[in-house]
Amino acid sequence: MGLIVKGGEVVTAAERFFADVRIDGGTITDLGAKLDPRTGDETLDASGHLVLPGFVDPHVHMELPFMGTVSADDFETGTASGIAGGTTTIIDFCIQTPGQPLTSAITQWHAKSAKAVGDYSYHMAITDFGPNTPNEMREVVQKHGITSFKVFMAYKGALMVDDGQLYQVMKTAAEIGAVVTVHAENGDAVFHLQRELLAAGNTGPEYHPVSRPSTVEGEATERALMMARLHGATAYIVHMTCKESMHALERAKLSGQHCYGETCPQYLLLDDSVFTKPDFGGSAYVMSPPIRPRGVGHHEALWAGIQNGLLDSVGTDHCPFTHAQKLAGQGDFTKIPNGAAGVEDRLQLLYTYGVQAGHISLERMVELGATAPARIFGLTGKGSVAVGKDADLVLYSPEGKSTRSAKTHHSRADRSIFEGFEVQGRVAKTIVNGRVAYDGQQLMVTRGSGRFITRKPSHFAAGVKA
Amino acid sequence: MGLIVKGGEVVTAAERFFADVRIDGGTITDLGAKLDPRTGDETLDASGHLVLPGFVDPHVHMELPFMGTVSADDFETGTASGIAGGTTTIIDFCIQTPGQPLTSAITQWHAKSAKAVGDYSYHMAITDFGPNTPNEMREVVQKHGITSFKVFMAYKGALMVDDGQLYQVMKTAAEIGAVVTVHAENGDAVFHLQRELLAAGNTGPEYHPVSRPSTVEGEATERALMMARLHGATAYIVHMTCKESMHALERAKLSGQHCYGETCPQYLLLDDSVFTKPDFGGSAYVMSPPIRPRGVGHHEALWAGIQNGLLDSVGTDHCPFTHAQKLAGQGDFTKIPNGAAGVEDRLQLLYTYGVQAGHISLERMVELGATAPARIFGLTGKGSVAVGKDADLVLYSPEGKSTRSAKTHHSRADRSIFEGFEVQGRVAKTIVNGRVAYDGQQLMVTRGSGRFITRKPSHFAAGVKA
Amino acid sequence: MGLIVKGGEVVTAAERFFADVRIDGGTITDLGAKLDPRTGDETLDASGHLVLPGFVDPHVHMELPFMGTVSADDFETGTASGIAGGTTTIIDFCIQTPGQPLTSAITQWHAKSAKAVGDYSYHMAITDFGPNTPNEMREVVQKHGITSFKVFMAYKGALMVDDGQLYQVMKTAAEIGAVVTVHAENGDAVFHLQRELLAAGNTGPEYHPVSRPSTVEGEATERALMMARLHGATAYIVHMTCKESMHALERAKLSGQHCYGETCPQYLLLDDSVFTKPDFGGSAYVMSPPIRPRGVGHHEALWAGIQNGLLDSVGTDHCPFTHAQKLAGQGDFTKIPNGAAGVEDRLQLLYTYGVQAGHISLERMVELGATAPARIFGLTGKGSVAVGKDADLVLYSPEGKSTRSAKTHHSRADRSIFEGFEVQGRVAKTIVNGRVAYDGQQLMVTRGSGRFITRKPSHFAAGVKA
Amino acid sequence: MGLIVKGGEVVTAAERFFADVRIDGGTITDLGAKLDPRTGDETLDASGHLVLPGFVDPHVHMELPFMGTVSADDFETGTASGIAGGTTTIIDFCIQTPGQPLTSAITQWHAKSAKAVGDYSYHMAITDFGPNTPNEMREVVQKHGITSFKVFMAYKGALMVDDGQLYQVMKTAAEIGAVVTVHAENGDAVFHLQRELLAAGNTGPEYHPVSRPSTVEGEATERALMMARLHGATAYIVHMTCKESMHALERAKLSGQHCYGETCPQYLLLDDSVFTKPDFGGSAYVMSPPIRPRGVGHHEALWAGIQNGLLDSVGTDHCPFTHAQKLAGQGDFTKIPNGAAGVEDRLQLLYTYGVQAGHISLERMVELGATAPARIFGLTGKGSVAVGKDADLVLYSPEGKSTRSAKTHHSRADRSIFEGFEVQGRVAKTIVNGRVAYDGQQLMVTRGSGRFITRKPSHFAAGVKA
Repeated sequence: MGLIVKGGEVVTAAERFFADVRIDGGTITDLGAKLDPRTGDETLDASGHLVLPGFVDPHVHMELPFMGTVSADDFETGTASGIAGGTTTIIDFCIQTPGQPLTSAITQWHAKSAKAVGDYSYHMAITDFGPNTPNEMREVVQKHGITSFKVFMAYKGALMVDDGQLYQVMKTAAEIGAVVTVHAENGDAVFHLQRELLAAGNTGPEYHPVSRPSTVEGEATERALMMARLHGATAYIVHMTCKESMHALERAKLSGQHCYGETCPQYLLLDDSVFTKPDFGGSAYVMSPPIRPRGVGHHEALWAGIQNGLLDSVGTDHCPFTHAQKLAGQGDFTKIPNGAAGVEDRLQLLYTYGVQAGHISLERMVELGATAPARIFGLTGKGSVAVGKDADLVLYSPEGKSTRSAKTHHSRADRSIFEGFEVQGRVAKTIVNGRVAYDGQQLMVTRGSGRFITRKPSHFAAGVKA
Repeated sequence: MGLIVKGGEVVTAAERFFADVRIDGGTITDLGAKLDPRTGDETLDASGHLVLPGFVDPHVHMELPFMGTVSADDFETGTASGIAGGTTTIIDFCIQTPGQPLTSAITQWHAKSAKAVGDYSYHMAITDFGPNTPNEMREVVQKHGITSFKVFMAYKGALMVDDGQLYQVMKTAAEIGAVVTVHAENGDAVFHLQRELLAAGNTGPEYHPVSRPSTVEGEATERALMMARLHGATAYIVHMTCKESMHALERAKLSGQHCYGETCPQYLLLDDSVFTKPDFGGSAYVMSPPIRPRGVGHHEALWAGIQNGLLDSVGTDHCPFTHAQKLAGQGDFTKIPNGAAGVEDRLQLLYTYGVQAGHISLERMVELGATAPARIFGLTGKGSVAVGKDADLVLYSPEGKSTRSAKTHHSRADRSIFEGFEVQGRVAKTIVNGRVAYDGQQLMVTRGSGRFITRKPSHFAAGVKA
Repeated sequence: MGLIVKGGEVVTAAERFFADVRIDGGTITDLGAKLDPRTGDETLDASGHLVLPGFVDPHVHMELPFMGTVSADDFETGTASGIAGGTTTIIDFCIQTPGQPLTSAITQWHAKSAKAVGDYSYHMAITDFGPNTPNEMREVVQKHGITSFKVFMAYKGALMVDDGQLYQVMKTAAEIGAVVTVHAENGDAVFHLQRELLAAGNTGPEYHPVSRPSTVEGEATERALMMARLHGATAYIVHMTCKESMHALERAKLSGQHCYGETCPQYLLLDDSVFTKPDFGGSAYVMSPPIRPRGVGHHEALWAGIQNGLLDSVGTDHCPFTHAQKLAGQGDFTKIPNGAAGVEDRLQLLYTYGVQAGHISLERMVELGATAPARIFGLTGKGSVAVGKDADLVLYSPEGKSTRSAKTHHSRADRSIFEGFEVQGRVAKTIVNGRVAYDGQQLMVTRGSGRFITRKPSHFAAGVKA
Repeated sequence: MGLIVKGGEVVTAAERFFADVRIDGGTITDLGAKLDPRTGDETLDASGHLVLPGFVDPHVHMELPFMGTVSADDFETGTASGIAGGTTTIIDFCIQTPGQPLTSAITQWHAKSAKAVGDYSYHMAITDFGPNTPNEMREVVQKHGITSFKVFMAYKGALMVDDGQLYQVMKTAAEIGAVVTVHAENGDAVFHLQRELLAAGNTGPEYHPVSRPSTVEGEATERALMMARLHGATAYIVHMTCKESMHALERAKLSGQHCYGETCPQYLLLDDSVFTKPDFGGSAYVMSPPIRPRGVGHHEALWAGIQNGLLDSVGTDHCPFTHAQKLAGQGDFTKIPNGAAGVEDRLQLLYTYGVQAGHISLERMVELGATAPARIFGLTGKGSVAVGKDADLVLYSPEGKSTRSAKTHHSRADRSIFEGFEVQGRVAKTIVNGRVAYDGQQLMVTRGSGRFITRKPSHFAAGVKA
């Protein structure tokens, strides 16, 4: 009745070792030098493959209502795309509409996510802090098993919170042991820069990065970390892109503050030349914060953080919009829906441009893409290959080269920001909850088979870093 | 014929999980939710215990000829002391006498270490770099399985190398993929400060720290890292004690340099008030670099490094001398043999003052004390609880309190620098090479049963950080 | 008809030299090794004295309507107090009432300042940025000769601007070549901290510093400098008190940004123990940002900035309230009017605790207290002893000791935050506009004799640092 | 009998003002709005000109025996070249031959410098520290009026001191109130890098910078400053070229250390592309430390230091060698005599590329090139235009453009590293000791008219920064 994955090289955040892995009832039960099948056990040959934990993407947005449209992947296609790319668990963002009770938003999100084919949780995004919000936040943690929140310091007039609200979210989170994830850009500055650019007739996607310089991200990161520090709250800065915000994070960590930083493959691998692609092609890359220029130290700072441990995780900010959707911003770059696909690309990109390129070890890749996100956000059954963990595994073949493309990915996005990127190796099989859900060619998933994972506030959120 | 450790909570650098552990022939063969004994298997009840990998101490000196005497623990008593404290593998320093071929020193060290009761390796310390040294270094790595070197930037007139030698060691190490461990203090400055203090009649042990201010450690750390950077060599700064050297390490890591830092429990937990203990009692604490004052940021910088990952490992610099030996420095602190015992104290101290105090997680403790030292120095069979690893385990009971003392430790040192330190939990059993070598009360070790572990240059030494 | 100051040692920001100084018609006309009186010239013996330029205080608030009351010194008593302390020129803050046209506020301020006995200018404080504010700002500079603005990032609900307003002030200032002075504290965080402290029954003045920790000052400094950098505006951070804001200023300057920092004697010389003085005595010291604790590096950072040049000027933030006025905050520290007297103390304190204590040279004292404020703010006739400068001089006797006290100072403040501070030397004579206005004992000033000094945007504001 | 310079705009480090300047007997006696000639006074029309103090070059080497030859300018041609460029005072380096008593070297230098046409002093370079050196250093200060020393951390086997010697020089200097100037490069690393490059057949001048990377300068700067800090000595780092050494200086200053930094025009204005000029043309630029590459932050760090005050002075390291002399290094770049001409170029370059380019004010230019060097090194009669100062003045016309060239400069150097640099304005007249020594076309100097200026240890050397 179980499944034995035989002959592969298991990789955890701590080490690599050859072992057979036995799965039973959706759980990893045994790792052994040589596991003999019991009656009814199936066997899967993993020789020549790396046996990785199912990757955990701490930053995705499926069917997100945003900027007048809805992101193109729903929970079914989005989680399926993830599985094809070796990601078996996602954390989406459940976003409060201003005025809405938090639990009402959760109900909405549960309705959407019921069709997911992989496991998931949410960060609860607070966009409107009222007198009852502290109580609601407590209920979200204790009754709904959602132990992380989100605040946006940008998107003025939409999602953005002001400093008073930021303060109160941090204070409440510290009291209830929750992590606060932060989109750090100075939304007021961005708002005015956008207005001025448009007024000057600068309307194309190439002005998107001009409206969001790295200094406004660095400033907001410093501010968010200060607000967390005031209360002993644990802040997690999402999608860091630049040296200024890295420096703010470094200063905080060097002074002993307990906080986390995340980046995404696009910030490591692309540069701002993408925004000038012809035929409104730059619009595909419009996301916030923007992809940065080379030659001024941003990419180097991010890679150093990946290597020296000051960056803790790599997410994707998967939030695709089709070209048709992006056209809403023709003639006004501020109306281009922000986001792109990525959940399916992350593992192969990290393997190729991180491990193969000599920047990081396999163990560190697993830590960044699976173990750390699971640990930071309290997904105790996820993120590693170990006895008792959920039976989510990736068999990765290091052999062969291929090319990332919108033609072959499983997202509904009709373009890929990694179009043409050559990658080494491939996801040969993805096992989800003990079953092979992707065999390297075909997805074999069942709509709705994904589960909402409830979490508990972890001791890490109370000031202890792993 | 195997041994099953049942019911414990396994801790690795990546995660914690409840699992039985099966050992066979000196190797961990299985981890399982429930392992059934095979014929001949013994079973050991680990319920209520943490099952840790045997700790690896990357920094000890057994029977070291130094300052006119020899350190008090030989390889037998020193490794036994380690086993009683949960450390099953040590890396000693094989030290070249000036003019001596490196292999000749290795032969000497092998003769001494043959009586060890736990496994061991050496760092090869180079004190005299001649024209043939590059060839000898290559031979040390390739034929002797020793893949790390040591240079002393202090101890002028004895072990100290000058900058030209430091340069050449780094250059050669980079070529052959070896790690260079560095004692970083400006030996010239120390030499003159010592002379001046003695000339002024300041002869007691309380002048030892005055002769080695933190600035001379910080400067030398900067210099060592620069020399490594010139060649792309991997430097590992041993026994870091102060903010100045931490800042130098941080700058290097933040700029993308591949390097490592180690501290020791005494630098985290003690302060320089120890040097004024009556009856020449301060002599027990004389080691280099010295224990630092509080209130100026040294301890905070070290703890932050422990937490934020910029420090990579915790060693002990175990190098005990008896009070009788220390008396050689009465009337002249520069003649006090430098060193103290610590190999037996490390795990309990890290557990109590690190984990219990809320500074670090159990996983991080295992990383600092076992996994990282093994990984950095290429001890591929050591440092974790995983299939295929050597069967070196510690069963740690988190229950109960006791007190560290020279009266009860197993080192020959007649004093303990941690005398009276209350600790939480205890080493209930230490398993070495598949056998219980310490049962929480008695050592059950066989002289000479320890093995020299040959190592290979790892890819980490070639610029990839885990 | 002229006046010759004979035999003194002139001190400028550049050098010291013995010279006679001839004044004619309110202007310095000659400096000479030996100046012979012309017919009608008077002579003043300055032998044994330092001949300093009249000091310039870039930060005072006379008869300021604030927190329900009005600061205790009006322009007459305040400028007289300054003259008795060697300060002959002040820059006050003309503060816009929300909704008020800027020029209307200037009219109000001119009405108040007409009674001044020393020269003065204003910084124009913007508290409400509307569509016409850029035009008004331009008019302020070009028609009113006021070339510096002020924004408050604190005092939420009163003077505070939000980030959008801050952005626009910086942008406009950059366009018109004006300097923007900034009160840098995160007003939202302060607001909430105050509310929480009061709610917890913490109502005494000792909670004032708790409500404004140094981190909120550091954060706001970083933010203000980022906003300036976006536009190439010149920011001048007033009353810096702590290491966090110093670090932000340092980072900006080290990266080549053109910006300035000011501190005040109280932040250099006092510590937060003052807030616990009995009988509501701590209220005398309530000002924002608050006086900081010792032992954590704030004072050291400020003194280092004074010495290494990264701090540019020393002002006073003179804004006295009597004990009767301070009583408004009994039972609620947030209602204690913020401010204290200082315009009369600065020179003696800088001389005693700066020059005599060996921290700075006489030349640097003159630069910090006179030359730099005049240069930064375009008071071209002020700030030095040189041919063509206004005839504002201080004859300072380095002999003798005395004690600062509210009993002897000339401010209306009934308490002194420097009460009991022993000082070395004294202001023997102050010459204002060519006339002796203070003879070391008596003020000899005429109500209304002070002049409003119009300024022009200087090239310094356009990105060139002196 | 006096000379009145009429109608110019005087510039000091503190301010600018229009004044007539009266000179009598080699001293400035009067500055006045309108000075009337006395009987016998001559008058010089300075209208339309800046009246600057004669510039002070703190770093030159005239007729220096070095690398098997002697620098091409002797004290006569070198000081004359300076005067044509507005530099009226130089500080040369009197260099001890190993084993030689310091006073013997001084005697040698006095013999050479007797023919100088402008005033001068020496830094006393210590290359060999023996038991009697402290006494000799004291004598140098007290009897010879030389209050600054020099150590070379590079030029192994020639001028280089080791760390023990460096320590002792700093210690002694602190005791006697002298400044220690430091050439900061790690000489051991350079030595080995040179050997390796030559062994690999890399012999051309383009390998000179490769043999002296910026990291070896940064490291040595850190080390020198640490050695100074140990003793409270005042270090002055000469010819700083790179971000790494700037960062070390910044860290020291930010921590409150009293120290100084100097750069030179070539490091601000040139880049390492010069080394590949054809026909061994790169040899003209060979000096140490080398001119640095662009694009990695070196030039930006230097300019920021010029602007923010962390750099204190601009010298030239004038040390020319002719092409014929440079040919000694054909086939071996380590034999190319290190050095180039610059004493005549500094003022025009600073005016054009500093002031005109908007980086610095005129006042700051005067501070960097005249006032600060004079103040730091105790040349109390030099460096400013003030009553009582020596009558060394430059009348600088800001009008007109010209081009720097070896064809027109007055040095014996047959090439100029600033060949073709367009400059704004010109030295219209240089007044030395009250006499016009250069009229913008002709030098009117008398061999031997220059004077050795004795200095006294200043209070600045005792830890007080101006």
